[in-house]
Amino acid sequence: MKTAYRAAELADFLELELRGCPDTPISGLATLEDAGASDISFVANPRYLALLKDSGAGAVILSAEHADRFPRVCLVSHNPYLSYAKLTQWFVTAPQPAREIHSSAVISSDAVVASDCYIGPCAVIGAGVSIGSGCYIGANSTIGERSSLGSGCRIESNVTIYHDVAMGCQVTVHGGSVIGADGFGFAPDGDGGWQKIHQIGGVKIGDRVEIGACSTIDRGAIGDTVIGSGVILDNHVQIAHNVRLGDNVAMAAYAAIAGSSVIGDNCVLAGDAAVYGHLQLADRVQVTARSTVTKSITESGSYSNAALPLMKSGRWRRNAVGFAQLATLASRLDALDKRTRSSDD
Amino acid sequence: MKTAYRAAELADFLELELRGCPDTPISGLATLEDAGASDISFVANPRYLALLKDSGAGAVILSAEHADRFPRVCLVSHNPYLSYAKLTQWFVTAPQPAREIHSSAVISSDAVVASDCYIGPCAVIGAGVSIGSGCYIGANSTIGERSSLGSGCRIESNVTIYHDVAMGCQVTVHGGSVIGADGFGFAPDGDGGWQKIHQIGGVKIGDRVEIGACSTIDRGAIGDTVIGSGVILDNHVQIAHNVRLGDNVAMAAYAAIAGSSVIGDNCVLAGDAAVYGHLQLADRVQVTARSTVTKSITESGSYSNAALPLMKSGRWRRNAVGFAQLATLASRLDALDKRTRSSDD
Amino acid sequence: MKTAYRAAELADFLELELRGCPDTPISGLATLEDAGASDISFVANPRYLALLKDSGAGAVILSAEHADRFPRVCLVSHNPYLSYAKLTQWFVTAPQPAREIHSSAVISSDAVVASDCYIGPCAVIGAGVSIGSGCYIGANSTIGERSSLGSGCRIESNVTIYHDVAMGCQVTVHGGSVIGADGFGFAPDGDGGWQKIHQIGGVKIGDRVEIGACSTIDRGAIGDTVIGSGVILDNHVQIAHNVRLGDNVAMAAYAAIAGSSVIGDNCVLAGDAAVYGHLQLADRVQVTARSTVTKSITESGSYSNAALPLMKSGRWRRNAVGFAQLATLASRLDALDKRTRSSDD
Repeated sequence: MKTAYRAAELADFLELELRGCPDTPISGLATLEDAGASDISFVANPRYLALLKDSGAGAVILSAEHADRFPRVCLVSHNPYLSYAKLTQWFVTAPQPAREIHSSAVISSDAVVASDCYIGPCAVIGAGVSIGSGCYIGANSTIGERSSLGSGCRIESNVTIYHDVAMGCQVTVHGGSVIGADGFGFAPDGDGGWQKIHQIGGVKIGDRVEIGACSTIDRGAIGDTVIGSGVILDNHVQIAHNVRLGDNVAMAAYAAIAGSSVIGDNCVLAGDAAVYGHLQLADRVQVTARSTVTKSITESGSYSNAALPLMKSGRWRRNAVGFAQLATLASRLDALDKRTRSSDD
Repeated sequence: MKTAYRAAELADFLELELRGCPDTPISGLATLEDAGASDISFVANPRYLALLKDSGAGAVILSAEHADRFPRVCLVSHNPYLSYAKLTQWFVTAPQPAREIHSSAVISSDAVVASDCYIGPCAVIGAGVSIGSGCYIGANSTIGERSSLGSGCRIESNVTIYHDVAMGCQVTVHGGSVIGADGFGFAPDGDGGWQKIHQIGGVKIGDRVEIGACSTIDRGAIGDTVIGSGVILDNHVQIAHNVRLGDNVAMAAYAAIAGSSVIGDNCVLAGDAAVYGHLQLADRVQVTARSTVTKSITESGSYSNAALPLMKSGRWRRNAVGFAQLATLASRLDALDKRTRSSDD
Repeated sequence: MKTAYRAAELADFLELELRGCPDTPISGLATLEDAGASDISFVANPRYLALLKDSGAGAVILSAEHADRFPRVCLVSHNPYLSYAKLTQWFVTAPQPAREIHSSAVISSDAVVASDCYIGPCAVIGAGVSIGSGCYIGANSTIGERSSLGSGCRIESNVTIYHDVAMGCQVTVHGGSVIGADGFGFAPDGDGGWQKIHQIGGVKIGDRVEIGACSTIDRGAIGDTVIGSGVILDNHVQIAHNVRLGDNVAMAAYAAIAGSSVIGDNCVLAGDAAVYGHLQLADRVQVTARSTVTKSITESGSYSNAALPLMKSGRWRRNAVGFAQLATLASRLDALDKRTRSSDD
C-alpha cells in the first residue's frame, strides 16, 4: 500500500501557493506522460509544456505564468525544478531500515557506534572507528581503523573506506567506491624501478557530500586529501592524493583531479573533465566535458579544449591528417602573404 | 584430469564438416602456436595462416579454402571465428558450483530463490527479491530489496545490485559493478549549493546481457533506466539515469551515456566513446574510440571526433599551438584570397 | 603514543651523512610547512627551498648544496626524493594486523594458506588457492579457485580475484579492483547479436606490482594476460585480455590497454592515455596524458596526440568549427599558392 498525502501538505512543505482542491490525494511522483490522478508532476522546462494539456496528473508544480494551462491542482513555484527536487524526499524508494546491527556484521570492540545506526550484513568496522547518530552502513562495506563518520551518513554496499578517513555529517557514498586508498606515489629508484612512497596522510570530507559509485578518493601522501562541504561527485570520479576541493564543487562521471591541485568553491567539472596536478583553480570555474586543465586558472568562467565537431568517420580522418600540418599551414600562409604583398609592390 | 571429446562430437555440435580422423581426442582449446596434439585451434584471420603449417594442434577450425593446408583434423566453417566462439563453452574454466546456499549467505526470509541456485559466501539477498532457476550469486555480492533476476543469471563477486532492479534471463554481471545507484541528480539551490533529487526510478535489464567489471548503471530519476536484450558492456562503463539502450548495443571500456539519451538497436560505442545527455541515436550507429556524440544522430553509420595523428610530443606541441589560431587562419586565407584576386585584376 | 627514533638511526637506514645532533628524537614525517621539532621533512624540489628557513622541522633530508640553509639536523642525500620515499616505510599508518584468520572468513578446506597470514573478516578463499607467507587479505575480498599469491602480498578490502590468477611476491591490490574478469570477447552471430567467447585463459602477475583502486585486469581469452614485475598501476586502470605489460611499466589513472597489445619494459602511460589493441610498444615509450596510441611504436621517446590549448569556451567553439575545414584549408592554400605564383609570371 502506498501512503497518500493531501496536496495541501505538499504545498505547505514546499511553501508554494496551491490552486485547486487542497484535499486531492497524492501518492506518487511521475513525469507528465506517466502520471495518473494520484501522482504529482512538474514542468521545469518550457519544451515540455505541450505535455501539460494531456497529462493525467492529479497535481503539477509549475510557474505562475503556466498555471492556467492545467485544470487540476497547481503548485505555483518560482523555481519548479528546485521544488520538485525538494519534494523527491517524500517518495524515496531506497530502503530505510530500522536501527539494527546485523548479527553477521563484524565490529571492533574498540569502535564507537551510535545506538540508532543500521549496520548491514557482513559490514566490517575497524578498531577506533566512530560512527555518529543515524548512520546507515550497507552490506559488505568496510570502514578502516580510526575513521570517523558524522551523523546521518549513508554508506551503501561494497564500499571501502580505509583507515584515518574523517567524514562530516550527511555524507553519502555509493556502492563500490573506495576512499583512502594509497595515492599513486613512487620515486624512480635510479635503476628503472619504482620506490613506493607509503601514503601516510588521511582524507577529510566535509558535510552534505555525495559520492557516486565506483569513485575513488586517495589518501594524502603527507597531510590530508580534503573534500569541502556540499561537494557532489558522480560515478568513476578520481581524486588524487592531497587534492583540495572547495565547497559545493560538482564533478560529473570520470572527472578527475591529479595530485595536489586545489579547486576553488563552486567549480563544476563536466563529464571526463580533468585537471593536471599541482594547479590552482579559482572559485566558480567551469570545465566543459572532456576538457583538460593544463595550467592554473585565476579567473572564473567556462574553459574548454575538447569536443571537436562530430562528423562521419571518413571525413574526420581527412581533417585529422590536416592537423599534423597545422604548424606548417600557418607559416606557409605567412610566407604567401608576404610574397604576394611584395609582388603587389 | 581433463575430459577428452572426440573431434566428431565437436563437429556435430558446431554443425561443421569434419575432414580427417573423427576419433581424434580433443581435451583443450589453444592458439595455433600453443596447441598440442589433443588441442583444437582455429584460423579466423588470414594473417595467422602462416602458423598453420607448424602448429601442433590435433584439430583446427578453418574455412574450406584453407583446409588443404592442415594435415590433421579440419573442421570446415564458413565463419571460423563464430564457430570458435561457440566452441569455447566446452572448455569453460570458471567455477560452476553445485546448487548450494552457503551457510554464511544472508537471505531475507521474504526473498524467493529457486531451488537450483548457487548463493556464495556472505552474499546478501534483500526482502522481496526473486531469483530464478539456475542463478549463480558470487561471494560478497548484494541484491537489494524487490530486485528480480530471471533464470540463468550469473552475478560474480562484490557486485552491488540496488533495490528495484529487474533483470531478465541469462544476465552476467562481473565483479565490482554497481547497478541501480542513484543517478547524478541535483538542482542548484539558488545559494551556490545543491539540492539532492532522490532517484525514485529503477533499472530494467533484458535477456542475455553481459556487464563487465567496475561498470555502473544508474537507476532512473523518475521512471526506469532501460537496457535492451543482447547488450554487451565492457569494464568501467557508465550508463546514467533514464538512459535507454536498444537491443544488442555494444559498449567497450569506459564508454558512457549521459542522462536520458536513447540509443538505437545494434549501436556500437568503441572504447571511451561518449554520448551527451538527452540525445537520440538511430539504430546501427558506430562511434569510434574516444569520440563524443554532441548531437542526435538520425542516420546509421560511423561517426568520429577523436584520434588525432600520434606524433613525437615536441611536434605535437607545435601543432597544438596552431590549433588556437585555426579560426584566424581561415579568415586570413579568405582575406589573402580576396586581395590577390583583386590585385590580379 | 608515537615511537621516536634517533635521527642517526634514520641516517643509517638511508645511508646518508648526518649533520647536527644525532640523538634528535624523530617521531613523524611531515611537509616543511607542517613539521614540528620531532618531525623529519625533505626538500626534493628547489622551489620549496624558501620554506626551509621557517620550517619547524627537527630534521630535513636535502642535498649537500642546501645543507647550510637549515640550522638543525640535515640528512644529506644525492637524491632527497628517493631518500624520502624509502623513509616513508618507517611511518606507515596502514594497519599491520597480527597473523590471524578471522572466524568469519570462509576458506576452502582445499586451500593452502601460510601460517603467518592475516585473513580479514568475510574474506572468501576458494578451492585450490595457495597463499604465501606474510600475506594480508582484507575484509570482504574474494580469491577464486586455483589462484595463487606469493609471499608478502597485500590485498585490500572488497577486491575480487577470479580463478586461475597467479601472482608473484609483494603484490598489492587496492580496494574495489577486479583481476581476472572475462575479457570483452564476443563474435557477431551474423544476425545482429553477439556470441559470447568464454575466456578460458588466466592472469599472470610478476613480483612487486602495485594495483590501485577500482582497476581491472581481464583474464586471457586463450592463454594468459601477463603483467611484468615492478609494474605500478593507478586507480581506474584497464588492462584488456591477453595484454602483456613489460617490467616496471607505470600507468596513471584511467590509462588503458586494449586487447593483445604488448607493452615494453619501463613504458610510462600518463593519466587517461590509451593504447589500441594488437599493437606493440618498444621499451621506454612515454605516452602523454589522454593521448591514444593508434599504431605500434618501435622507438623509445615521448608521444602525444592530446591536450590542445585550453581557452575560454567561446573561443574554443570558434576554433573547433575551423577544425572541420582543416582538410579544405590546406588545399585552398595550395591552390592560392599556385595561382599567385602563376600570376607573378
